[in-house]
Amino acid sequence: MTTSVREMLETYPGDLGSVDREAMARCIQECIACAQACTACADACLSEGMVEELTKCIRTNMDCADICNTTASVLSRHTGYDANISRAILQACATACKACADECGRHAEMHDHCRICAEACRGCEQACNEMLTKLG
Amino acid sequence: MTTSVREMLETYPGDLGSVDREAMARCIQECIACAQACTACADACLSEGMVEELTKCIRTNMDCADICNTTASVLSRHTGYDANISRAILQACATACKACADECGRHAEMHDHCRICAEACRGCEQACNEMLTKLG
Amino acid sequence: MTTSVREMLETYPGDLGSVDREAMARCIQECIACAQACTACADACLSEGMVEELTKCIRTNMDCADICNTTASVLSRHTGYDANISRAILQACATACKACADECGRHAEMHDHCRICAEACRGCEQACNEMLTKLG
Amino acid sequence: MTTSVREMLETYPGDLGSVDREAMARCIQECIACAQACTACADACLSEGMVEELTKCIRTNMDCADICNTTASVLSRHTGYDANISRAILQACATACKACADECGRHAEMHDHCRICAEACRGCEQACNEMLTKLG
Repeated sequence: MTTSVREMLETYPGDLGSVDREAMARCIQECIACAQACTACADACLSEGMVEELTKCIRTNMDCADICNTTASVLSRHTGYDANISRAILQACATACKACADECGRHAEMHDHCRICAEACRGCEQACNEMLTKLG
Repeated sequence: MTTSVREMLETYPGDLGSVDREAMARCIQECIACAQACTACADACLSEGMVEELTKCIRTNMDCADICNTTASVLSRHTGYDANISRAILQACATACKACADECGRHAEMHDHCRICAEACRGCEQACNEMLTKLG
Repeated sequence: MTTSVREMLETYPGDLGSVDREAMARCIQECIACAQACTACADACLSEGMVEELTKCIRTNMDCADICNTTASVLSRHTGYDANISRAILQACATACKACADECGRHAEMHDHCRICAEACRGCEQACNEMLTKLG
Repeated sequence: MTTSVREMLETYPGDLGSVDREAMARCIQECIACAQACTACADACLSEGMVEELTKCIRTNMDCADICNTTASVLSRHTGYDANISRAILQACATACKACADECGRHAEMHDHCRICAEACRGCEQACNEMLTKLG
């Protein structure tokens, strides 16, 4: 897939300060990829014969999708930057991704969509934690 | 406005545990009202003649709207409850609402939409902090 | 619930043209109330013992929630108004609300959350269709 | 960027019918890439010195971002498929992408972020129109 995340960052007309652009672009990309995986995994779980055993997974997927999408949007904005908001939403995102990776991980051997989604969640969790370290 | 937030909470078929339903319903309602106010305030700021002095306000409004909408969705789900996710998104929401109330508050005397939006943000910030206390 | 939908509309600093403000405010409110009801109904369905018979209902609830939230946001913006976008998203919203009202309506006698959600969807469908008539 | 859009589609446990999986995956990817570009472009416009001439562009970017994100979510779900909802949201998405591509296109020579965003919008508009043809 080709996104323009990095190009949009490079053409931002204001001052990006000392932000690590590579880490920022990666984090935005992980968030939008993870949101899509979670939305698709919630739906795939709904179509499993054993859906009644996957209800916690579906719910966690939905929370994670919403939080990842919101985090991607917040990180895509640089005007009037407020470190407190970025930090708080990154923490929420890392928390949701960890919970969703753990939950999907429990069904990874049985359901391929849960395995793939767990990987997306782990990648996003790491990217959020890396951004949190960089933001200080 | 009539919402069915409280009725939906009362008809949830699972176990809501010891949650304070009144505080929960209020918090969801404050989140969705605040999200709408922030979206409308960002747009109203865009139409002010002095828009170049309101760019931080517009950006904060957009972050706050996204985070409030996501918080309302997370709080509207009870299946497979994960206190860590609820706590983290409530903290992000209280942070965004405080920042947006402060920013809109700076223009409250000049712009009525900022005054109204600041009130919505304060109400939502309080409701989120109250929920955080109740969640422990 | 108290929202500031109407007040935000009244304090918009630009020209609202010949828009019917009461219909507009009602439509925004119906959209945000319907989005919340659908998110809560999807979750309530997940906790029903017969969840495997409610998967279409859950999915339709999720689509309807997303579309209603987006419609509320589009209608809350007036700057640089584009009638084509408003009309297209209102048509999508009316379509999703009709589908969700029909689907929830099938389980309304058995599940109170589906009954309440179907009412919210019908109200929102009507408000969207009314707005479409007014937009011409 | 690596997304798991295609893998999630391939591991869906239900029946996808006669859907063109390649077109579907491409459309989802275009939607999420376009949503990010639009969110970033709205913010970049906010930081331009001539922001007061870009207010219609900012607003159209915001509508397009919301509609693209919602379209990506609807297309990522297959359970309980309703062609009417898919068709209506794809039409809204193609409409918003066309409007945003036109608007950003007007500033493409002056602002690189508008040029890149216009390309993302054109790509997404085409992908939505292609999906509409396939859905019949």
